[in-house]
Amino acid sequence: MTSHTFYSIIAAADWIGIAVFAITGALVASRKQMDIVGFAFLGTATGIGGGTIRDLLLGQTPVFWVQEPLYLVVCIACSMLVFFVAHVPRSRLVLLLWLDALGLALFCVLGAEKALTHGPVVAAAMGVVTATMGGMIRDILGGESPVILRREIYATAALLGAVTYLTALLVMPREWAMLAGFAAAFGLRGLALAKRWSLPVYKPREARRPEDVGL
Amino acid sequence: MTSHTFYSIIAAADWIGIAVFAITGALVASRKQMDIVGFAFLGTATGIGGGTIRDLLLGQTPVFWVQEPLYLVVCIACSMLVFFVAHVPRSRLVLLLWLDALGLALFCVLGAEKALTHGPVVAAAMGVVTATMGGMIRDILGGESPVILRREIYATAALLGAVTYLTALLVMPREWAMLAGFAAAFGLRGLALAKRWSLPVYKPREARRPEDVGL
Amino acid sequence: MTSHTFYSIIAAADWIGIAVFAITGALVASRKQMDIVGFAFLGTATGIGGGTIRDLLLGQTPVFWVQEPLYLVVCIACSMLVFFVAHVPRSRLVLLLWLDALGLALFCVLGAEKALTHGPVVAAAMGVVTATMGGMIRDILGGESPVILRREIYATAALLGAVTYLTALLVMPREWAMLAGFAAAFGLRGLALAKRWSLPVYKPREARRPEDVGL
Repeated sequence: MTSHTFYSIIAAADWIGIAVFAITGALVASRKQMDIVGFAFLGTATGIGGGTIRDLLLGQTPVFWVQEPLYLVVCIACSMLVFFVAHVPRSRLVLLLWLDALGLALFCVLGAEKALTHGPVVAAAMGVVTATMGGMIRDILGGESPVILRREIYATAALLGAVTYLTALLVMPREWAMLAGFAAAFGLRGLALAKRWSLPVYKPREARRPEDVGL
Repeated sequence: MTSHTFYSIIAAADWIGIAVFAITGALVASRKQMDIVGFAFLGTATGIGGGTIRDLLLGQTPVFWVQEPLYLVVCIACSMLVFFVAHVPRSRLVLLLWLDALGLALFCVLGAEKALTHGPVVAAAMGVVTATMGGMIRDILGGESPVILRREIYATAALLGAVTYLTALLVMPREWAMLAGFAAAFGLRGLALAKRWSLPVYKPREARRPEDVGL
Repeated sequence: MTSHTFYSIIAAADWIGIAVFAITGALVASRKQMDIVGFAFLGTATGIGGGTIRDLLLGQTPVFWVQEPLYLVVCIACSMLVFFVAHVPRSRLVLLLWLDALGLALFCVLGAEKALTHGPVVAAAMGVVTATMGGMIRDILGGESPVILRREIYATAALLGAVTYLTALLVMPREWAMLAGFAAAFGLRGLALAKRWSLPVYKPREARRPEDVGL
């Protein structure tokens, strides 16, 4: 595979990830019955949120969508489309969660790829940040319980995807490593959704209120 | 109008916007019965929040108030003033919403102006970011429902102001274009407040809970 | 004291502050019964949150933990440790609040130190930001009421510590000034916790809802 083809694939994956995250943001806006500007706002914040935080942390500013405003246009267009067709799918929530899983799997690999020069620990962290922050912004702004903190496999899937990619890089060409990372993340998150899997949680004791301990 | 006068007007508008946003933050602190440090903290975060996020996204760091700490001093002074006089106005909430409208209209133009070199799409986005993020930080920290996501015309007014400014720039001098943008944003937001206007919202279906769709 | 010793002390204080904040984040994760990845995520975000925001505002990017990934490793290790031993202390909440006080007192001095070249107002602000933002991120992500906005002395203690450090710098060597700032912040926050102290709050009037004032 030529280097040119490789960068075309990365670019395509990037656009797809941003579009599907924008759609999930707009679907939350439809669940909250916002107006069309609310759709555009929440869709755009979700689509570009993860990559924006990654760019800020790495000091790659102006952030990517300031350098290429077409990203904003795509997010706004996707969000407006959702405004008009959100009643079509039988369940917005199921669609939202599967699109979110797709975006998560794409971005955990692309985020790690963007931070490769900073070493494996930072690359894995940036994979997780890029994959999860858009959804976290969406859930905080939309008043939903952040999916990353619910008792399901979510950040874990992003971490697995990033680590799989970084490990696979050692033994195979870049494009196959990316595919492996994507498959690992999407597979785990998809299984968690389909089978309602979760990791064991910390259970010994419920939280008490400040008054209960004399504060 | 000389260039010197022009920059004096921009600077004055900037200080006024920061002061009125700081006051709205302090008014939320008074609604939540915080102590004086809480007033200063919430007032300052609201006053400088929008411009700070704009500077970070554009990579203009250190952010503006690190370069000119007087902004912090003004925010703290305004917030402390509110601590002592917040009981005077008949309705803090009405005052808060109108001052917020004033800050919104000033910052959507100033934010777009600061990002002009990045093209119209980014400039409009930065107008909306600068105008709305201070209030969003205020509402999230103060535990209020973010005004930007309520069913009223808010981000829409900021967007209208920024787009009006950018369009007007093509046909009139800068200072008149700024006035036009300000008038458009303040007029629309003011009408929305006075007449309780809102855009049509997405209504087809209420949100269901995860359990309802088998998750 | 040699310059070498001085920097060793600063570095040690930095690592201790990050570790204790990471532990407080993991303790919140245990209160919310998250899984182990949730512990690692919330612990890490809390440990590095304050310093990350300080670095972003000052334009010191890539942020500190991208340049030294060992910080991430320490945060993750501390969080995982908490996953296995959080049931040991008699009260997680009391432990959490005292560790938080320790981190607060360390970071208000270290944050001010890092921003010294920007003048006293910005240095004091960065002390408060570094000391309080990790805890604020922890509380927002963990769904707790942010400790900084509760009616107790919190940001006030960070501010006192930073101002004490900056003032003491004028009359004593750096290491003693740091100790003075730390003692002032930890003393005040500790007294506030032990004696349930708080500043006088704004009391004249409860908040009304939008409907009450005709909005």
